[in-house]
Amino acid sequence: MAVMSEGLAAELERVLPAGRVVHDPDVMASYAHDEAEWAPYGKPAAVVRPRETAEVREIVARCAERGVPIVARGAGTGLSGGANAVDGCVVISFEAMNAIVSIDRNERLAVVQPGVVNDDLRRACAEHGLWYPPDPASAPWSTIGGNVATNAGGLCCVKYGVTRDYVLGMEAVVGRGEVVRLGRRTAKGVAGYDLAGLMVGSEGTLGLVTEITVRLRGARAEERTIVGYFDTLVAAGEAVAAVAAAGVVPSALELIDRHCLRAVDDWRHMGLSEGGNVLLLGRCDAPGRAGEEEADAILRCFESAGATWSTRSTDPEEAEALFAARRLAYPAVERLGPVLTEDVCVPRMLVPEMLARIERIATEYDIHIANVAHAGDGNLHPLMITSPEDEAARERAQEAFELIVDEAIALGGTVTGEHGVGLLKRRGLEEEVGPVVLGMHRAIKEALDPAGIFNPGKVFAVGDRPSPGQTFGP
Amino acid sequence: MAVMSEGLAAELERVLPAGRVVHDPDVMASYAHDEAEWAPYGKPAAVVRPRETAEVREIVARCAERGVPIVARGAGTGLSGGANAVDGCVVISFEAMNAIVSIDRNERLAVVQPGVVNDDLRRACAEHGLWYPPDPASAPWSTIGGNVATNAGGLCCVKYGVTRDYVLGMEAVVGRGEVVRLGRRTAKGVAGYDLAGLMVGSEGTLGLVTEITVRLRGARAEERTIVGYFDTLVAAGEAVAAVAAAGVVPSALELIDRHCLRAVDDWRHMGLSEGGNVLLLGRCDAPGRAGEEEADAILRCFESAGATWSTRSTDPEEAEALFAARRLAYPAVERLGPVLTEDVCVPRMLVPEMLARIERIATEYDIHIANVAHAGDGNLHPLMITSPEDEAARERAQEAFELIVDEAIALGGTVTGEHGVGLLKRRGLEEEVGPVVLGMHRAIKEALDPAGIFNPGKVFAVGDRPSPGQTFGP
Repeated sequence: MAVMSEGLAAELERVLPAGRVVHDPDVMASYAHDEAEWAPYGKPAAVVRPRETAEVREIVARCAERGVPIVARGAGTGLSGGANAVDGCVVISFEAMNAIVSIDRNERLAVVQPGVVNDDLRRACAEHGLWYPPDPASAPWSTIGGNVATNAGGLCCVKYGVTRDYVLGMEAVVGRGEVVRLGRRTAKGVAGYDLAGLMVGSEGTLGLVTEITVRLRGARAEERTIVGYFDTLVAAGEAVAAVAAAGVVPSALELIDRHCLRAVDDWRHMGLSEGGNVLLLGRCDAPGRAGEEEADAILRCFESAGATWSTRSTDPEEAEALFAARRLAYPAVERLGPVLTEDVCVPRMLVPEMLARIERIATEYDIHIANVAHAGDGNLHPLMITSPEDEAARERAQEAFELIVDEAIALGGTVTGEHGVGLLKRRGLEEEVGPVVLGMHRAIKEALDPAGIFNPGKVFAVGDRPSPGQTFGP
Repeated sequence: MAVMSEGLAAELERVLPAGRVVHDPDVMASYAHDEAEWAPYGKPAAVVRPRETAEVREIVARCAERGVPIVARGAGTGLSGGANAVDGCVVISFEAMNAIVSIDRNERLAVVQPGVVNDDLRRACAEHGLWYPPDPASAPWSTIGGNVATNAGGLCCVKYGVTRDYVLGMEAVVGRGEVVRLGRRTAKGVAGYDLAGLMVGSEGTLGLVTEITVRLRGARAEERTIVGYFDTLVAAGEAVAAVAAAGVVPSALELIDRHCLRAVDDWRHMGLSEGGNVLLLGRCDAPGRAGEEEADAILRCFESAGATWSTRSTDPEEAEALFAARRLAYPAVERLGPVLTEDVCVPRMLVPEMLARIERIATEYDIHIANVAHAGDGNLHPLMITSPEDEAARERAQEAFELIVDEAIALGGTVTGEHGVGLLKRRGLEEEVGPVVLGMHRAIKEALDPAGIFNPGKVFAVGDRPSPGQTFGP
C-alpha cells in the first residue's frame, strides 16, 4: 500500500498543475484531522488542494483506479472526526476552491464553490440585500462545502432551518470520476430522487461536492433580544419548554451555562458569570407590533420559569456582544483542556429533562461537563473537559459520552443534531436507527460508491459482510 | 404470471382480515389508474385496502417472495400516471389507513397515516392553532401519502415550501417486508443519510410509507389579496417577474388564463372572464404594516407590467371565491375533453419567456392549450385539451407536450415542479438529468428494492442492463 500510495502522490504531481500537491510533512500533518479531539486518524499518502472541478475529477479517477480512499475537507472545523484521514488516503482540501460564482438577486440564489467561508457568503449576500441563514458557531471559519457535508445548523436554525433547507442543487464528482449536476435552480422540482438532498449530510461518503447552488432569503429583519439568567440548568430548560408551549418561534434561543460563562470571562473578561449561573439568550424578528408581542411573550416565559434576572435588551451593541460570547463558548472551553463534544437533539419539551440527565451523569462519572445549546430546537452541546494527563478521567468521559447518547435516544431524540456522525457517533447511529436502516445506508453507499473510495469508515463501519437473510447489504 | 397472480389474490384473502381484498371487477378497474388521462395502465391481479402496517408488511413479504409488483395509491388524483397499475400487480390503496394519530401542539408536529386527506389534516391542525402548509389544488381529495410520494406542492409553496419541507420522519415497509422508521421527531438531526427525504418524491418506487410525522407551523396569518387582469399571458408573466425583482415573497401568486376562466364560468357562472384575458391572484401575509407594504408593492408590480385592471381586494369572501375558482380550473377544463397536463417549472424571471414559448407551440401545433400556474415559483401547468375523437390532435398534443418539456429544460427549468415523473415525464427526466444521474437513480432503486417489486417502471424504465464502462447500474 505504501509503495502504491507514494506512486499515486507522484502521479498526482505529474497530472495536476504545479502547487496542488502538498509535500511539507508538517503541513500534511495539519490536514490529517478535524477538531474532534478524541477521534482517531491516520496518515495521508497525499494532500491535494485542487482549484477546479476538472482537477477533482482527475484525482477521483486516479484514486478509483487504484482503490485509494479519498477524504474531503473544508476548513477542518468538524467536531465528529468526519474529515479525519485514514492511512494511505488522499486528503482533498477544498480551501482553494473558494469563489462565489454568482449571486442572483431576482432568483434569490447564489452559486458558490465549496471552499467559500460561511461568513464570507453571508457578507456577500448582504451586499445584494439578501441573506444566507445557516450560521453554525464556526461561521467565521467553516466552509459551505463542509456545512453541506454535515448539514450544518446554527443559531438561527430554530426559525430558519438548516443547510439542507437552502441547498437547491450542486455539481459533484461521483463514482469513478463522473461530474454530475444534482438538484435544480428552480424554486420547485420533483424530477427523480432527491439526490442533492441525499448528498447533504452524507459526510463525503457518496462523492465530492464541487459547486453548490443555495437558496437565499431577503435581507434579515431587525431582531429583538431577550436576556435571562437562571439558577439551574433545569430552570433554564423549563424556560425553553415554556417558549415552545407559548407557540412563539424565536429566531435564536441559546443557552450558556456557568462553566462556559466562566471560560469566556477568563479569556475575554466580559463579566458574564457575575450575572448568574445559566444564561439564556432569546431573539425574535417578526416585524412591527408582532415582534414586540413575541419579545414580551419570551420574556414572560423566562420569568415564569424562575429567571433570577431577565430583561429585554435595548442596546444593540450589548446584544451583539452577548451573541459573540455565545460563539466564543466553544473555543473558550477548549482552552481548558481536551474537549469531547456532544451534539444530541431532543424534543423541545424534553430539554429540561435531558439537561437534568446530563447533570446526573456528570456527577455520577465525576467529570466536568460544560453546556452550550441551541436550546430552542432541543440541540444540546454538553462539552466534556478533562485535563490532558488524566487518562482515567478521559475514560470516564468517554463512558459518559455514550451514556448521554443513549439518554437522548431514550427521550426520542437523535445522537447528532448538526455535527454529523463522523467517527465519534458511529455506535450512536447504529443504536438510533437499528440494523435494517443501517443496512439501507450500506446498500446506498455501495450503490453510489462502487469503487469504495469516498471517506470509507465514516458514518458507519465498512467491510462487514451481510448476515444471512439480510435484505440490504453489503 | 396469471395463474401465480390468481394464487396470490387467494393467498392475500387468506392471510389478511376479511374485507381487505377487493373482488368486484368494476371496483378493481377503478383502482387501475390515476388521473393522468393519457398514461397507459394494466390490469391488477389484486387490489387490497389494508388497515394496519402489519397487513402492509404481510402483503409486501408475499409479493417479494413471488416477485409480484406493488403499486401504491392514495386518492388516485395523481397527474403523471405514477399510480397506474401494471399487469399482474397488486394495487395497495391506503384510503382506509386514514387516522390522524396525534397532533402535538408543543412540538408542532402531527403523526398521520398515509390515507389522511390533505384538507382533513389542515382542518384538524387548525383546531389546535396550527397549520400544515402544503396545499396542492387537489387538497380536498388527495392524501398525505400521495402528497409524500410526489412531494406535492401547491399554492402557498411559493413562500412556505413543499411537502418535503414538512416531512420529519416516517414509518415505511421496505425491502422484503421490513418495517423501518426513517427520519426523526426532533427539530434537527443529521444521523446518517436523509432516507426520509429520499422517500419523499420517490413515487412508491423505494418502499411503502405507512405513517408520516410532519412538522407544523403556527396558525396561518391573515392574508391580503391583490387581483390583476392582463391582456396577454406574457404581460401577466412580466408582472410575476416584477414581483420577484421587487424582492417581495407573496404567500400565493397564481395565474389563470382566459381558457380556464371561461371553463370555470361555463361551469359555475362566476363571470370571471368578463374582467379580462389573464387573471393574476396575489396574496401576502406579513403582519401589520409590513403586510400593507407587501400588498402595495405587489399591486405596483401588476400596474407596471400593464395590468388592464388591478386592485387590492377588500372583501374576504370575494378573495376566497377567486381562489376557489383557481382550484376549480383543472376540473373545469377536464369537462371540455381529455386533458394532458404539464407541470414544468422555470426560474421566476423566465416565466414570461416560457409563457411566450408555450403560446408559440400552441399556435404551431394547432392545439388548445389552457394555462394555470403557480406563477410565483415559476411552476406552470399548460393544459392540452383535445376532443375525444380527434386522434390527429391528440398526436399533435403529445408532440407539443414533449416540446414544452424541452423548452423548460432549455431555460434551466425542470420537467416537473410538483406532479412527479410517473410515466408521462420519463423521457423528460432522462433529458433533464442525463445518463450518469439516471444511472445513480437505477443504482439506488436496485439497492433499496432488491426484489424489484416497488412500482417498477415508474420514474424510469427498468430492465435495461448497464452499458460497458458504466459506473452506476443496473
